[in-house]
Amino acid sequence: MLKHLKKKVYEANMQLPQYGLVTFTWGNVSGIDRDRGLFVIKPSGVDYDKLKPEDMVVMDLKGNKVEGDLNPSSDTKTHLELYNCFPQIGGIVHTHSPWATSWAQAGRDIPCYGTTHADYIYGSIPCVRNLTKEELDEDYELNTGILIADVFEERKLDCMAVPCVLCKNHGPFTWGTDAFNAVHNAVVLEEVAKMAAQCEWINPQAEPAPQCLQDKHYLRKHGPGAYYGQGN
Amino acid sequence: MLKHLKKKVYEANMQLPQYGLVTFTWGNVSGIDRDRGLFVIKPSGVDYDKLKPEDMVVMDLKGNKVEGDLNPSSDTKTHLELYNCFPQIGGIVHTHSPWATSWAQAGRDIPCYGTTHADYIYGSIPCVRNLTKEELDEDYELNTGILIADVFEERKLDCMAVPCVLCKNHGPFTWGTDAFNAVHNAVVLEEVAKMAAQCEWINPQAEPAPQCLQDKHYLRKHGPGAYYGQGN
Amino acid sequence: MLKHLKKKVYEANMQLPQYGLVTFTWGNVSGIDRDRGLFVIKPSGVDYDKLKPEDMVVMDLKGNKVEGDLNPSSDTKTHLELYNCFPQIGGIVHTHSPWATSWAQAGRDIPCYGTTHADYIYGSIPCVRNLTKEELDEDYELNTGILIADVFEERKLDCMAVPCVLCKNHGPFTWGTDAFNAVHNAVVLEEVAKMAAQCEWINPQAEPAPQCLQDKHYLRKHGPGAYYGQGN
Amino acid sequence: MLKHLKKKVYEANMQLPQYGLVTFTWGNVSGIDRDRGLFVIKPSGVDYDKLKPEDMVVMDLKGNKVEGDLNPSSDTKTHLELYNCFPQIGGIVHTHSPWATSWAQAGRDIPCYGTTHADYIYGSIPCVRNLTKEELDEDYELNTGILIADVFEERKLDCMAVPCVLCKNHGPFTWGTDAFNAVHNAVVLEEVAKMAAQCEWINPQAEPAPQCLQDKHYLRKHGPGAYYGQGN
Repeated sequence: MLKHLKKKVYEANMQLPQYGLVTFTWGNVSGIDRDRGLFVIKPSGVDYDKLKPEDMVVMDLKGNKVEGDLNPSSDTKTHLELYNCFPQIGGIVHTHSPWATSWAQAGRDIPCYGTTHADYIYGSIPCVRNLTKEELDEDYELNTGILIADVFEERKLDCMAVPCVLCKNHGPFTWGTDAFNAVHNAVVLEEVAKMAAQCEWINPQAEPAPQCLQDKHYLRKHGPGAYYGQGN
Repeated sequence: MLKHLKKKVYEANMQLPQYGLVTFTWGNVSGIDRDRGLFVIKPSGVDYDKLKPEDMVVMDLKGNKVEGDLNPSSDTKTHLELYNCFPQIGGIVHTHSPWATSWAQAGRDIPCYGTTHADYIYGSIPCVRNLTKEELDEDYELNTGILIADVFEERKLDCMAVPCVLCKNHGPFTWGTDAFNAVHNAVVLEEVAKMAAQCEWINPQAEPAPQCLQDKHYLRKHGPGAYYGQGN
Repeated sequence: MLKHLKKKVYEANMQLPQYGLVTFTWGNVSGIDRDRGLFVIKPSGVDYDKLKPEDMVVMDLKGNKVEGDLNPSSDTKTHLELYNCFPQIGGIVHTHSPWATSWAQAGRDIPCYGTTHADYIYGSIPCVRNLTKEELDEDYELNTGILIADVFEERKLDCMAVPCVLCKNHGPFTWGTDAFNAVHNAVVLEEVAKMAAQCEWINPQAEPAPQCLQDKHYLRKHGPGAYYGQGN
Repeated sequence: MLKHLKKKVYEANMQLPQYGLVTFTWGNVSGIDRDRGLFVIKPSGVDYDKLKPEDMVVMDLKGNKVEGDLNPSSDTKTHLELYNCFPQIGGIVHTHSPWATSWAQAGRDIPCYGTTHADYIYGSIPCVRNLTKEELDEDYELNTGILIADVFEERKLDCMAVPCVLCKNHGPFTWGTDAFNAVHNAVVLEEVAKMAAQCEWINPQAEPAPQCLQDKHYLRKHGPGAYYGQGN
């Protein structure tokens, strides 16, 4: 079942240690088949060097396990909620990558200090608040997803233009058109988070990039007038 | 004698350079056989690329060398004292890993800024004071172990819930259920120490994670209600 | 056409990931044949692990594509303008290397804090201002090149003595006698940018190296009295 | 001539890139045969991946080239002066390793913040002043060596207990009993320099390690009462 997607999600999971984004089992990738309404996710707490494509767990969009011998990632309900709220996305990544997690621990949005950021992410990267004790007790992982979606709605953010978020005192989630693209955005986020911290270190009064430069770079790569790349 | 344990402790020692936790010979791992009351430890000052399983030194819990051609690690009495005071632990690691050592040099406890920390360590990581000149002169390594145990008692810390400590102006000790688990915790400590420093850099007013979030994550992985991983 | 130069520019491009200067496709190298008035540049947005020598694009100095199936780098007009304004240079590199980009985002010139810098670069590394909205709208990449050349003229900088520049909120350009030398200077810039940030961290009141020391080191390697190396 | 020493100095030079201490040709190692009064040093500006044992240059202690087709390192006279002033040393290393160089650029001594430092270096690591313009013009490299020796004399430092120095706005020199030991100390210095900077970052009010702890660790490894290692 979903053999092709399982292989893809497995390979995307294996990219996390290759890109230096995870220590031990601190990360997970999922990918969705929108036609069938099913998503595939890494099992919980399995070492990357022991992971196999057939270990991937298949879930439906109500949170039922449809196939798989292992328990799905403990963050599965967050993935589920994001798939339900953001219908355009095809893959999700959660990691504890060091620089993005440091910003999440610091509880700050990451300002757009340059074109590396603007090439992929339109505007600041939001850091959402802590859940209340009640939200935690009720359903920690599900309420994390709900909170992210609420913040995107409140701030009028397009999930495809801002493909990442920080959860305060926890770490980042990123997403994309599919599992590989979500991993790509996780790499971008870590690099952007590192350079934003270094930028403030070098100049504590640093200002975000001018809006016209942010627009120029984002639109150079995205939308109808894009001219970066080979036009595929 | 203790052939199996020697091999395990040897392999755990070899993980230290693999995980980037040691430069030269700046680290040592031990593991204990509680039934026989004997522990196995790395010899002092031997290069990792020349180390062999049969070089491991066997000690009893009174500090007598029971087997081995080489001198045991110069930190052996600290290991000894920790095994005597913390009967639940099965392995101990000492390193000079850069971020944990920087916090030890700074003489500060590491606050729990996020879930990466809370997943493994319940509350702050204590930094114990310097020994007095008298304690140093009497028995440096033994008194280091005694001080650690005293601090855990005074602060009412459970050694299994806080599997690590910083010794001021020196470096970290970590421990665990066995030698491999102690190395695992040494890796966690280094990652947590790095992200805590970066967090304070990004936001000098950063606050520790809310207690309810720390509880949630620690208990998600530990204790009777744990649901992280595959339940083994 | 220009088979030899294409191979060289291809190899220089492949050095960027080898030296850790680029993530994904965030960089490009070009090289020029001054006799023919043609330069060769990396195609836009092509992964380094799929790049081939024959993918290189040939451009003339008016900005026309002379040969190549793929679109040239989106930064091509900046390269073009630099070749036109700096007739001594033979190769150009653009990257988003983390430390140089952090300085660019911080909007500061990099002071000459030591001989590592002075051995290669005479005086501060300039950070040029943002383009205005009008300049951006008119021709972003061309006006970037014009601005760089203007700043070098205003500040009376010799492009061979200062083989690099930072574009505010964007990143660095470096150049040299050929494509390989331009990559060499990109590595130097990244190392110098890192050590300048660390220097200010260690001593916020740090002063640039004395002028006589800067002169000594620069002239030890460059010009008629040079005595570093083997005199080739 | 000195075939054995050339091989050793060659191998010690090759350790610099292996330990991540040099970029390009930014470093050199020498070793001395005290009986013959001759030392062997890396040629100037030769890439490490092209270096061969037979490229090593043989110098006498008056600064004459005794053997070798290539020019010796541009820092040769500094090595020469150190061999003349510090008769106990058998090898010297110069690098631009990033953290040690950042401290040199910052113009500060490195305080002894912990036992990693105290295990190898007794007390602070001195940073010597800039040469005056007159000293630079007269003989830069020779006067650098003279200044280092003067500072050690003024501060009553034992060159074997403090096997390293920082030259302001330039970088470190380290030395040891032979070429390999000098490289070992260069690795120690870089690690100590990194952790001292990080320590001050985590606690700007951090104090050096208590003198009794510094004594304990230094004497645990050095001198008649040493008990670290296997007593060889």
